Amino acid sequence: MTPGGNAISGTEREVVALAGAVEAVDGGRADEARRRHDGLVKPPGSLGAVEQLGAWLAAVAGRCPPPVPTAPAVVVAAGDHGVHAQGVTPWPQAVTSAMVDMFCQGRAAVNAIAATVGARVAVLDVGVAGHPRRHPRLRHARVRAGTADLSQGPAMTREEAAAAVLAGAGLAEELVGSGVDLLVTGDMGIANTTAGACLVAAFTGAGAAAVTGPGAGADAAMLAHKTAVVAGAVARHGQGQADPLGTLAALGGLEHAALAGVILSGACDRVPVVLDGVNTVAAALAATALCPPALGYLLAGHRSTEPGATVALDHLGLAPLLDLGLRLGEGTGGLLAVPIVIAAARLLTDMAAVADLGEG
Amino acid sequence: MTPGGNAISGTEREVVALAGAVEAVDGGRADEARRRHDGLVKPPGSLGAVEQLGAWLAAVAGRCPPPVPTAPAVVVAAGDHGVHAQGVTPWPQAVTSAMVDMFCQGRAAVNAIAATVGARVAVLDVGVAGHPRRHPRLRHARVRAGTADLSQGPAMTREEAAAAVLAGAGLAEELVGSGVDLLVTGDMGIANTTAGACLVAAFTGAGAAAVTGPGAGADAAMLAHKTAVVAGAVARHGQGQADPLGTLAALGGLEHAALAGVILSGACDRVPVVLDGVNTVAAALAATALCPPALGYLLAGHRSTEPGATVALDHLGLAPLLDLGLRLGEGTGGLLAVPIVIAAARLLTDMAAVADLGEG
Repeated sequence: MTPGGNAISGTEREVVALAGAVEAVDGGRADEARRRHDGLVKPPGSLGAVEQLGAWLAAVAGRCPPPVPTAPAVVVAAGDHGVHAQGVTPWPQAVTSAMVDMFCQGRAAVNAIAATVGARVAVLDVGVAGHPRRHPRLRHARVRAGTADLSQGPAMTREEAAAAVLAGAGLAEELVGSGVDLLVTGDMGIANTTAGACLVAAFTGAGAAAVTGPGAGADAAMLAHKTAVVAGAVARHGQGQADPLGTLAALGGLEHAALAGVILSGACDRVPVVLDGVNTVAAALAATALCPPALGYLLAGHRSTEPGATVALDHLGLAPLLDLGLRLGEGTGGLLAVPIVIAAARLLTDMAAVADLGEG
Repeated sequence: MTPGGNAISGTEREVVALAGAVEAVDGGRADEARRRHDGLVKPPGSLGAVEQLGAWLAAVAGRCPPPVPTAPAVVVAAGDHGVHAQGVTPWPQAVTSAMVDMFCQGRAAVNAIAATVGARVAVLDVGVAGHPRRHPRLRHARVRAGTADLSQGPAMTREEAAAAVLAGAGLAEELVGSGVDLLVTGDMGIANTTAGACLVAAFTGAGAAAVTGPGAGADAAMLAHKTAVVAGAVARHGQGQADPLGTLAALGGLEHAALAGVILSGACDRVPVVLDGVNTVAAALAATALCPPALGYLLAGHRSTEPGATVALDHLGLAPLLDLGLRLGEGTGGLLAVPIVIAAARLLTDMAAVADLGEG
């Protein structure tokens, strides 16, 4: 039964089953990785956060040394937002669909960075209002053509939110099935930092002013208005941790729900998942509220300048790997962390032990 | 003539000629890159430091968009230090030679990270006291078998320092000649953070306590002693900016001098040079004192936890790209920055312009 007392739909039951299938990461293997690092040919601890990353990878995989990722992929989940009508962004809604086309053509920022780090780009239309062109890189799994206006009522139904979670999980499962061993989360959706800020506020309890930022370019007046929209919506719908799927449905975007599914599916398959900016950490708040052990599979790739990202990361207890002043989304910041993750695994596999010094 | 009034050696004259051949980077191309970024399919400025990197690459190359680096290489310059006799490190001096063997065998941290980012590893023995084995990856250009004890007198002669500069420059020139288009600086030398701290103090004017750190693992008592050694040596020999080569000779290591040569040679050939930890930024202080325009070719790959690194970077006005708590050297932190540098160039080449949205 939902908190409201209604019967749980089959879709929602699938989400619950997915969350229930996630096993905790293996802290014993993390300890083993730390001990291993202390015996390698370098001063103990001298690789700092990269040693911690190696321990995390061992915990995720349940193996030490952890496997070296060879096939990373970024899932860029795209959706539109009814709250766009409230004037919370200077960009027209049609840009969402146009950018999906760009991702498919390989001409967006995410493509240039993915090509650099050897990652595949998978695009998920889980709720675009426009009509992106067909493309082999694009998965059509549209739950609805954009959310309803979250400032006027729930953004979507529980069932729609659950369906979007499963769409993301399905794509992640398929990618992992085809060999992908490192998942990066990415988002596209004009006005989605408004929904993202709502989710961060609802799940962390932080105030609207603390979590709302300029997103893709709101000026001071627009930011004040956007903050008021966030405050009103959270006051009306925010149930936070008590009902994660209800909160996701009321305040989120279809892409946030889909990314929560990517996270749950990755965790289920013991694949490390790298977060990007505020919308992906908002999705992580939902995913970890649905399934606390999923937190162990998450790495904060970077710290977005969007204030909600830092509020969410602090709430999750995740320290970002990079801090480069990015605020683009698409998975760009998460992808930039990928080579460091791969290096962290390789160090544990390739390096000699101090005991080997002078032999050879 | 040197400041002391002696005739300048032919070797030193070659260093002066090398420094004089460096042209200033092209700020106009940096501005062009910034304007180009503002027209690409993303909110202007939303890639933060990565956009600045792109502008830097354009300035270095004198072209916009800048060429995308395809063949990075790290130069690991190795040398030993007479000041080791003062008990400034817990590691035996023989480790320098043993680690050079490890670099050649591909089993050190630098190799694992270089393999991850697609970089070649070139090792330069410019002053190891031991006897590394022959290996195709190792260049023998030993100026002397380790420096003299800088706490007792000059670490080397001006001519030796100049010869070490030229050894580094020669290897960098050869690498660039064979197609290398991005240079990373790396160091190996037991006790070299003592020499590095001396150089940072002498070139920046900072006090010994502000620049001396635990290096590869000095405890509190050893650190206090090491700081006193640095303070004494700098008081005795430090001439700083007034005589860069003299300062390098009095206080530096052969690997610091060689890395200054790598920097000058890279700058001469308009190749971007990525710095690593405290020893490479100490070398950068020497290189930019010899040749101020060389600064424009330098990127701080990361912020080492060694305090002298931050003092030196602040003096140079360089903001580090990464901050991962590393303090290993070998070029490890510089290499981790390489994919971000490559991505910065690719973004300027691969991305569509806003004007292209909706076409295709």
